Amino acid sequence: MLIDQFPRASKAADFVEGQQVTVHGFLSGKRVKGSALAFADIQIDGGPKIQIVSTFKKQNSPAHAAHTALRSIPLHSPVSVTGTVAKLYGTPSPAESSSTAPGSFPDGVSRIDIDLESIQPLNVFPKDIIVSKDVQFPPTARHLQIRFSDPLRSRLLARPKMALQLRQSLDRLGFTEVETPVLFKSTPEGAREFLVPTRRAGFAYALPQSPQQYKQMLMASGIRGYYQFARCFRDEDLRADRQPEFTQLDLEISFATGEDVIRTVESIVSDLTQSLTTNFTHVKKGDEVYLAPKRVQEPAEAEGLDIQPCYTKPPFPRITYEEAMTRFGIDKPDARIPFEIHRLDHILPKSFVSMITDLENPVVEGFRFRPQQEDLPESGPSAAMFDEIMKNLPPALEKNPDGAPVALVIDSRKPLRGLSPLGFEGVAALESGEPGLEEFADLEDGDVLVFQARENKPFQGGSTALGTFRTLVYQQAVSKGLLPRDLSFRFLWVVNFPMFTPDNDTDPGQGGSAGFSATHHPFTAPLTDADVELLATDPLKARADHYDLVVNGVELGGGSRRIHVAKMQEYIMREILKMTDQGVAQFSHLLEALRAGCPPHAGFALGFDRLVAVLTYTDSVRDVIAFPKSMKGEDLTVKSPSKITKEQLETYHLAFAGKK
Amino acid sequence: MLIDQFPRASKAADFVEGQQVTVHGFLSGKRVKGSALAFADIQIDGGPKIQIVSTFKKQNSPAHAAHTALRSIPLHSPVSVTGTVAKLYGTPSPAESSSTAPGSFPDGVSRIDIDLESIQPLNVFPKDIIVSKDVQFPPTARHLQIRFSDPLRSRLLARPKMALQLRQSLDRLGFTEVETPVLFKSTPEGAREFLVPTRRAGFAYALPQSPQQYKQMLMASGIRGYYQFARCFRDEDLRADRQPEFTQLDLEISFATGEDVIRTVESIVSDLTQSLTTNFTHVKKGDEVYLAPKRVQEPAEAEGLDIQPCYTKPPFPRITYEEAMTRFGIDKPDARIPFEIHRLDHILPKSFVSMITDLENPVVEGFRFRPQQEDLPESGPSAAMFDEIMKNLPPALEKNPDGAPVALVIDSRKPLRGLSPLGFEGVAALESGEPGLEEFADLEDGDVLVFQARENKPFQGGSTALGTFRTLVYQQAVSKGLLPRDLSFRFLWVVNFPMFTPDNDTDPGQGGSAGFSATHHPFTAPLTDADVELLATDPLKARADHYDLVVNGVELGGGSRRIHVAKMQEYIMREILKMTDQGVAQFSHLLEALRAGCPPHAGFALGFDRLVAVLTYTDSVRDVIAFPKSMKGEDLTVKSPSKITKEQLETYHLAFAGKK
Repeated sequence: MLIDQFPRASKAADFVEGQQVTVHGFLSGKRVKGSALAFADIQIDGGPKIQIVSTFKKQNSPAHAAHTALRSIPLHSPVSVTGTVAKLYGTPSPAESSSTAPGSFPDGVSRIDIDLESIQPLNVFPKDIIVSKDVQFPPTARHLQIRFSDPLRSRLLARPKMALQLRQSLDRLGFTEVETPVLFKSTPEGAREFLVPTRRAGFAYALPQSPQQYKQMLMASGIRGYYQFARCFRDEDLRADRQPEFTQLDLEISFATGEDVIRTVESIVSDLTQSLTTNFTHVKKGDEVYLAPKRVQEPAEAEGLDIQPCYTKPPFPRITYEEAMTRFGIDKPDARIPFEIHRLDHILPKSFVSMITDLENPVVEGFRFRPQQEDLPESGPSAAMFDEIMKNLPPALEKNPDGAPVALVIDSRKPLRGLSPLGFEGVAALESGEPGLEEFADLEDGDVLVFQARENKPFQGGSTALGTFRTLVYQQAVSKGLLPRDLSFRFLWVVNFPMFTPDNDTDPGQGGSAGFSATHHPFTAPLTDADVELLATDPLKARADHYDLVVNGVELGGGSRRIHVAKMQEYIMREILKMTDQGVAQFSHLLEALRAGCPPHAGFALGFDRLVAVLTYTDSVRDVIAFPKSMKGEDLTVKSPSKITKEQLETYHLAFAGKK
Repeated sequence: MLIDQFPRASKAADFVEGQQVTVHGFLSGKRVKGSALAFADIQIDGGPKIQIVSTFKKQNSPAHAAHTALRSIPLHSPVSVTGTVAKLYGTPSPAESSSTAPGSFPDGVSRIDIDLESIQPLNVFPKDIIVSKDVQFPPTARHLQIRFSDPLRSRLLARPKMALQLRQSLDRLGFTEVETPVLFKSTPEGAREFLVPTRRAGFAYALPQSPQQYKQMLMASGIRGYYQFARCFRDEDLRADRQPEFTQLDLEISFATGEDVIRTVESIVSDLTQSLTTNFTHVKKGDEVYLAPKRVQEPAEAEGLDIQPCYTKPPFPRITYEEAMTRFGIDKPDARIPFEIHRLDHILPKSFVSMITDLENPVVEGFRFRPQQEDLPESGPSAAMFDEIMKNLPPALEKNPDGAPVALVIDSRKPLRGLSPLGFEGVAALESGEPGLEEFADLEDGDVLVFQARENKPFQGGSTALGTFRTLVYQQAVSKGLLPRDLSFRFLWVVNFPMFTPDNDTDPGQGGSAGFSATHHPFTAPLTDADVELLATDPLKARADHYDLVVNGVELGGGSRRIHVAKMQEYIMREILKMTDQGVAQFSHLLEALRAGCPPHAGFALGFDRLVAVLTYTDSVRDVIAFPKSMKGEDLTVKSPSKITKEQLETYHLAFAGKK
């Protein structure tokens, strides 16, 4: 069996009862019933269920040979099977609607029984690979993970359907997909880039962290609406569930404001979620939820495993960065969380405040967690959950110099119902039911009050300690069954971010000497005239016309109106960020393009891996990428990156650095 | 004008005569008629023609201010214009079919006249950029090239329409688009790869020359039909019109043979060409031919500038490599060329043969070129063209050790009609009209006979000297008007290529020690059992199940049935190509995947840049790439690659090599 010659697969129209057909697929089930009768399934991705019936009457007949062959071929091997159609289940569609391609099946047929005449193995599934119901294959064998995991395969199959839907929506709206270079150059845009050395000594390409600069040049080129499913790259220390390469749906519109972009994104996301409802069954099997393409028959529905998805309808709610940080302590709030943060220091006794923090005049915020209890409220489960959370606090919360979070469980059997650290005075203040704080006056057993202090200064960055803790409490409560698992998708916009963020150690920023960097990138436009004025006087207070799309606590993407006037762009780079001449010169192509009568424009970048992950009910982008990289940036299947040699480097006029 | 606040553009339904509207676009034409009347055009990509009429009655009225503003704003600046709809040309479609998005226009309207009320510049087109009818902007200003060249912009806009059509066809056929990593690893597949150093000392990714190995792993993963528009990379010395990064439409089908793949490719290409006929006007203006989206009114048609495209209908003709080399001297024949190569040494006198070559027992081949003459045939134009060709022969032909081509022009005024180098004997043999060589017996003035010798050995590589010369003659004849320009698209398949090609200096191959490398890649399956046997006995004679798609002399792509059995793949690598253990080990992920019961599979890769270029009537892929690289691999607009610093290299534990 060195080379493969096998009969062609039959086409849809050939599947008529009594007619001879050939099907190709994986041998996926064998049921031997005595010495002369056996059944087997042929697994065909996207095809109907095929059941093979094998029996024989005469020894040494062709049927006997086929029967013997069927019994000897290892399970999971690819096979070509020829036989007679015994029975079709379902209602075959009229022939003209069916494909004439080999390997196609009639629409409307859910199962086909075939009486075996001959079977040919097309390769052999090896004995040393054990396939069982709950087997977990290692990431080094991604091909086995994909082949034997229905949820994984279903996500990889749903992904391109989602991309195609987005493309069709954008095409209908008059957008043009433009491919921009992957071999770009290093510019101080924000993140660390991968370099690609060239054979010209001392010169390298860099892989783009986004097509931002190219798409702005397209706006200057007169392209009205641009989009691209763009591969982007960041050589970052990989945080949880980040990939060094990722796919974003990148778009930009000329003669547009942020408002136009927000409406456009809402429109295409809404088309997408509509198509997910229409074309997929949302299957819930135990803890696993995934999308399966709708078939003729819907086993999930038949088995009561289907759920009805629920998506926010546009227009999506919008909140400012300031409000998001105030109410949720995070700039990507999860709108499913049923409790909000409130400022409480004005009603808390000083004694309590000094217990929970060493800060002078801190802001103290808190929230009320209430479990969803079916029976009479009781404090046991809440107390147990918070005990566990407090024992496993992430270091950033536990060792927070502003103090750790404090949780008080309401328990009517205890003094002051468990609130004694607040003292009579504190409890009385809470129970006064101050407007906006009514929920703290209406406490019942099992409720938990959480308090956290922070410095009294404007918000910066993505979250407060309490915001992080709140998310943690919600996730724990859902996993412990204290709150129901909410499978709805709550989209919202966060707008009006600060233009600049003080420099830190992790992001390279733009390398200017101002002590701060552009929060998103240096091309973001100020929000209003007042913000333009703040640039010169108090730049850290200036807000940008930037907007983030968030669903269920996940940032799906962000965008902004851009600076489209060369002088303004140069002013920000040179005078505000205090970039060097050399740094500014690296953007000369962009400044030239803006200078050439570039129209106003605004855009957006949607993290496509993340979008697919969220909408197919998984937390990890690794579940929606065929060959993902590990936390260390390795592809464990192909074993990349791999060792390079001195000789390879010499081609690029490079050498290993001394230390090695 | 630091930030931009401007009225929103009107939507389709707003365009009613007498109603106030706002439009955004570029000020593209101004016609001043006296002191109080001016016209201007607003250019809107993909929109109708907008004509602004500006007049005023009272000094210092708002109309006067608008008029003054219009006159002062530089041409080509982006503007926002508000005014009253004076007239709609065409037949507006019913409102419900029109978009409600800002910036949309009613379907069916070809021109809108607007009485100006106010105009706001949104940026200023600078005075130092001179735009005139025939201006050529340098590649450093790609944004100006795109903005001011209709053919270039039309190609960039046609490209995504073609990609979307291909995606829709493949989706309908049940294919799944899967994105595979760009950060791959170095494997000896055939071409030189770009390296991407990592911060792990001594380790690098490599950019993929194609997703070949990943897609074969997807076949082992049970994916039935895979495709991807994949960015691919080759660090090659750039030959004419090659790019270091390019896009290929990559596909693979499991349980399939080459035949299945060929049919699939014919089907999707045919869908594509059909859609080009339906959705585009093929505009011919002078020498320039390009596609313009069909609009309500078709100016090209109105002006008689449209041509009807003609595409080969499937099934496309197939010829073997052997036949292509024999009849056309090239493995990517241009089926528009009206003359073929014939072997002639058996009828040529020895004296003539020794005149044209020093080879012993050469093969001598020739063809007859016949100009398409309207009047009585005459030899002058042919003679002049061949004189010029011979004076400018490419070095490879002129200095060919087997001898240069020899052309004899038929001229009845000369001895032996110009064939005296053949002698009476040679002429008599030609005129005997041997079967298959009848055209050489039927000569008329202006015909040219071309002769070329080559070594008497099997064909190797992509073309013979005569094949190259034949293409050159055809191109020259068309450009001189001796043959008509043929705008049809002649698709064909070339099949049954040799599996292996002797090593050369330019391609790294697989680095084995056999003295030859896989012609395409080491995963290609042998054609028949006989070819499998030849592997062991005479591998250079073994043919592969490889097929190339060719149109008009351009190779659009190639594919093959793959080796799907691990043992066979290892045998070829180890025993035939004589790769080292280390070389084979670099493919261990692929061998593992094949071993895991991988089904038979075959696939194809279509050069998408090339496809778009050919079908939009340009010779250069640079005309269909928004930001192409130069012949030196530079992006002249953004100036990549750029200089890297010692510090950047240190991040990757690298240093500049000593010599620098």
